[in-house]
Amino acid sequence: MSDPSVLIERAKAGDKRALGRLLTLLEELNADNAWILERLSSEGGRAHVVGITGMPGAGKSTLISRLVRAFRDMSYKVAVISIDPTSPISSGSIMGDRLRMQEHATDPGVFIRSVTNRGILGGVSLAALAMIEAFDVMGYDKIIVETVGVGQSETDIMNVADTIVVLTMPGAGDDVQALKAGVFEIGDVYVVNKSDRPDAAKTYEYMLFVAEKEALGRGGSWRPAVVKTSAALGLGIRELAETINRHFSYVLESGEKERRLIARRTHLVRLVAARLLLQSLSEVMEGERERVGKVVRDMRGFYDEAMRIVRLTGKRLVE
Amino acid sequence: MSDPSVLIERAKAGDKRALGRLLTLLEELNADNAWILERLSSEGGRAHVVGITGMPGAGKSTLISRLVRAFRDMSYKVAVISIDPTSPISSGSIMGDRLRMQEHATDPGVFIRSVTNRGILGGVSLAALAMIEAFDVMGYDKIIVETVGVGQSETDIMNVADTIVVLTMPGAGDDVQALKAGVFEIGDVYVVNKSDRPDAAKTYEYMLFVAEKEALGRGGSWRPAVVKTSAALGLGIRELAETINRHFSYVLESGEKERRLIARRTHLVRLVAARLLLQSLSEVMEGERERVGKVVRDMRGFYDEAMRIVRLTGKRLVE
Repeated sequence: MSDPSVLIERAKAGDKRALGRLLTLLEELNADNAWILERLSSEGGRAHVVGITGMPGAGKSTLISRLVRAFRDMSYKVAVISIDPTSPISSGSIMGDRLRMQEHATDPGVFIRSVTNRGILGGVSLAALAMIEAFDVMGYDKIIVETVGVGQSETDIMNVADTIVVLTMPGAGDDVQALKAGVFEIGDVYVVNKSDRPDAAKTYEYMLFVAEKEALGRGGSWRPAVVKTSAALGLGIRELAETINRHFSYVLESGEKERRLIARRTHLVRLVAARLLLQSLSEVMEGERERVGKVVRDMRGFYDEAMRIVRLTGKRLVE
Repeated sequence: MSDPSVLIERAKAGDKRALGRLLTLLEELNADNAWILERLSSEGGRAHVVGITGMPGAGKSTLISRLVRAFRDMSYKVAVISIDPTSPISSGSIMGDRLRMQEHATDPGVFIRSVTNRGILGGVSLAALAMIEAFDVMGYDKIIVETVGVGQSETDIMNVADTIVVLTMPGAGDDVQALKAGVFEIGDVYVVNKSDRPDAAKTYEYMLFVAEKEALGRGGSWRPAVVKTSAALGLGIRELAETINRHFSYVLESGEKERRLIARRTHLVRLVAARLLLQSLSEVMEGERERVGKVVRDMRGFYDEAMRIVRLTGKRLVE
């Protein structure tokens, strides 16, 4: 039943349960099933990967839900991958999928999936990148990756998305904090959400200034766009969808899409290699646990011990 | 100036700037400076590591600030390590250290440090564990690690803390979500914060029930405690500090402290080894980037390529 080849065929035929199982396999990628990725991806490379980041409270989930609807109205198939642990979508793997996104639950052209942390180093990034490949092959046109904009996984995803959308909201404090955190250096599209609030105009002006500054610092002819929305009221969503599409046309025509695709897949090779390395390390540690425990009790010989483990792992890998 | 041996000596003599620099080195641990850990830790192993977890909004930062004060009143030296990216303490490395925790800024017996994500796989866990060793050696009695309770780093820390404090607040929704997320399976001490709110009694009753259930499922004679606080009003803080101390007496007497110390340091060996493995992988990838990019463009040969990278890395390690 969960033979990956069968799952791939069924998922391609539109079987959502099969796709769900396939995604679970990809989340738990290891030496025995890493070949699935290769099988999956030889046909992909067409999808538009949209990274959406923003601080908790900016209304990300509601905005994404609206954006999914807008893309559906344009007849795109849409997948959402949530790697924001504070998101209702993501916490999520537990409840959120069924809550906020409920309106899309019965739509065969929408698939929403959160990446759970299964306690594996680098697991979130690898799972998200592998899922992108899967959704791509399955014919999803828009793959939205939701992140909170901090942490390794976010950085990984943002570096390889085709379009990066940065969400902000009225309130200077947040802006300054996000600015200092460097969030505003990456956006292709900036969104001022909750723009029905009276203090929105100031934030909008500020974001225009940020975009202007960005435009100067970058190569290429794309000038970061600023869009006003109110996700709660459903305002500005279509304009946002169109702006995101316009950016995709830009990356396609400029050759940037090809460059990002290669970067994404190269990073995936690296993450798979890292997973296999760490799997080997785990196996070595398992066998050496008792000895390591004795040595490290008072930390004398700690470094030699770490080096010994590294060499044992290396040896295991070349065998 | 930043010769690690000199920094260690100065930090031991109470020089906070030297300690700060040392922590930065530990954050960026690599093959060239991993020996610092060994130098540091041979004298440690005495500190009480307290992991504090809780959803954003539960008042964690305020509670920790109060708890620091309470421990100071008991004449303990206190360190705080924040690995919660949404915490004002942590975001933090940027602003928070100076904001919420300001009252402790001039206290020579308090050191507050957030762990920033420097884009290195597993970096947060390694940095936090290495910092624990540093604070331990420098004579800090209580090392508080603040986490948001989700993600790999949190799991890592919680597995190796001596005492785990789980923070909740009135509001059934949160409880159910946290319960489903498994947060409530790990606490040694549960805190119902904002207990001045009218709906606090229900949550308190519920947490007593959770603690009761936990007590049944565990070995050992410790029965998870439930403490009511209002961090904002400063209520229940001393009782919380005393309960945390009582748990420390328990782990010391039961031999659990020794077991957790060894587990913590064994995990540190593993993380250092992982860091060195991944450093090797980066070097290999650097040299192979062009070839990998060509191969992965259409993903044919993807898996063989990942395996080739793994073997190259292994080879490099045994040389």
